[in-house]
Amino acid sequence: MTVTVAIDCMGGDHGPEVTVRAALDFVRKREDVRVILVGLEDKIRPFLMHVEGERISVRHASEVVAMDESPALAIRNKKNSSMRVAIDLVKLGEADACVSAGNTGALMAISRFVLKMLPGIDRPAICAMLPTVTGHAHVLDLGANVDCTPEHLLQFGIMGASLVSAIEHKDRPTVGILNIGSEDIKGNEVVKRAAELLKESGLNFVGNVEGDGIYKGKAEVVVCDGFVGNVALKASEGLAQMLATFLRQEFRRNFLTKLVALIALPVLKKFIMHVDHRRYNGATLLGLKGIVVKSHGSADVFSFTNAIDRAAEEARTGVLARITERVVLQQPLLESA
Amino acid sequence: MTVTVAIDCMGGDHGPEVTVRAALDFVRKREDVRVILVGLEDKIRPFLMHVEGERISVRHASEVVAMDESPALAIRNKKNSSMRVAIDLVKLGEADACVSAGNTGALMAISRFVLKMLPGIDRPAICAMLPTVTGHAHVLDLGANVDCTPEHLLQFGIMGASLVSAIEHKDRPTVGILNIGSEDIKGNEVVKRAAELLKESGLNFVGNVEGDGIYKGKAEVVVCDGFVGNVALKASEGLAQMLATFLRQEFRRNFLTKLVALIALPVLKKFIMHVDHRRYNGATLLGLKGIVVKSHGSADVFSFTNAIDRAAEEARTGVLARITERVVLQQPLLESA
Repeated sequence: MTVTVAIDCMGGDHGPEVTVRAALDFVRKREDVRVILVGLEDKIRPFLMHVEGERISVRHASEVVAMDESPALAIRNKKNSSMRVAIDLVKLGEADACVSAGNTGALMAISRFVLKMLPGIDRPAICAMLPTVTGHAHVLDLGANVDCTPEHLLQFGIMGASLVSAIEHKDRPTVGILNIGSEDIKGNEVVKRAAELLKESGLNFVGNVEGDGIYKGKAEVVVCDGFVGNVALKASEGLAQMLATFLRQEFRRNFLTKLVALIALPVLKKFIMHVDHRRYNGATLLGLKGIVVKSHGSADVFSFTNAIDRAAEEARTGVLARITERVVLQQPLLESA
Repeated sequence: MTVTVAIDCMGGDHGPEVTVRAALDFVRKREDVRVILVGLEDKIRPFLMHVEGERISVRHASEVVAMDESPALAIRNKKNSSMRVAIDLVKLGEADACVSAGNTGALMAISRFVLKMLPGIDRPAICAMLPTVTGHAHVLDLGANVDCTPEHLLQFGIMGASLVSAIEHKDRPTVGILNIGSEDIKGNEVVKRAAELLKESGLNFVGNVEGDGIYKGKAEVVVCDGFVGNVALKASEGLAQMLATFLRQEFRRNFLTKLVALIALPVLKKFIMHVDHRRYNGATLLGLKGIVVKSHGSADVFSFTNAIDRAAEEARTGVLARITERVVLQQPLLESA
């Protein structure tokens, strides 16, 4: 089965230089994928190097959503932006999924406006995988919703569990809520009430997960509001980058340490892979009637390729249909919250 | 000048086994420090090994604040808890500072009740140092206040800047606010309003700092609400621990990698030091009329010793007087917010 991914080539800090190159790399590696490169044609073509064909096409879009543009204005005034057109292609069925490294708020707002939400879900949530000592955890929301109600957090729990059920074939994945202590009395009012809802939900709820609990693998799905999730994610990335820098510095200190580095290289490489957040780039906007994947704005080619891979993989495995099915099953729960 | 530190020996996951041992270690290393070990005498003495004397004394306190106890109940019902008595000693001038690894909420509430706040400051904030690529940053609040107003965040900025001015002799340290994007439009309403207040404050405000910006050294003082700060801190700790585990695993994989580890050990040790959050244990409760240092609940002996060191150091350098002076100078600003 060939899947088609629409790529917003104008989004992100680097634009077509990264997005188009990543698309070409990806198509070269995967024979069962088509890409539609969406954006300003004259900015895209210089990186295309005449490889256009059945599997790589360009769709001109005359506008670009700026990284700091208000989502409301982006919906109203930029109907021909690369981001909008990429999402439209999913809506029209011309693409099975789309990817953007652009303005998160605008991506969420436009996706919601064009694709609409699944029944019972109010707002999309950004869900990404983080590595843990035991494997990985799916964390949501990572930045789409800066103010959440307890009901939103319950919806995140249901969607996250549905996603994990679907893609990892687990019947009842564990669900935890991100909090500042393991005891029930900890946290703010929203989190406490959300924990109650999750407890009553019939999900496999394991209670509070602290920041370090994410990496200890305390839950397969970790629920949080987008502000907290985004800060935790980026703090982790920043720390990992800093540690990688320190490691490099120590090994480059003098001739002897450089020699040691050479000997240790194969071992260090395996370790550095764990530190490299680029491998985990590509977060799903969950809750929409369509697959939308958000890449990190600062993604490089390797990193953006992983985001495309995630979109293609979700399309290929029919994740959307499975989530929809699960969310519909959970309807009574969502309505009673 | 000899300083006296009162130690709540009953707090934390391990109690006297860690706290008393750490106190003994510390007194052995520093000649200019006295410690008062506060808690259940019969639990403390087994770890004291008859070293009591002029520099090490025991103050019996018959109660213990549980880790999950409500702060209000701890104030009302536990007037003879180890935590309360340690704070009382600071109030009475018998100790220059106190340290506890106990229940954070209770420590904050009791400190505030007994010691009172500095003029113009509503609530204590937990402030700790985190390493950055360029040195370190002071981040607050790290868990004392789960719901903050913009005015509280302004107060955190003023207190943080005062602390850094005092202990690092910097006239105008940079102050940033933790947010989910670098643009002004990002974040929730509280953070946006707080950013406005900080901009008008006359502090050396550098704007939004994202999660990764903490470690990139974007600001010397990073302000955030206690929920977000706590999650970011613990997520960072969890990630660092996980990476240390992975590094160990890779080097222990087989005979050859173990040999490589042996060769690389001196270099790795320097690196592991950067990963070791125990070195940074000991967070100050800022805004009080007295020095109160909070240790991580799960602290081991090495880690708790660092918390005692922080308390002693703040007492020795007269940080409290310097902060008080600064905060008083900033009064007009606090009143106009």
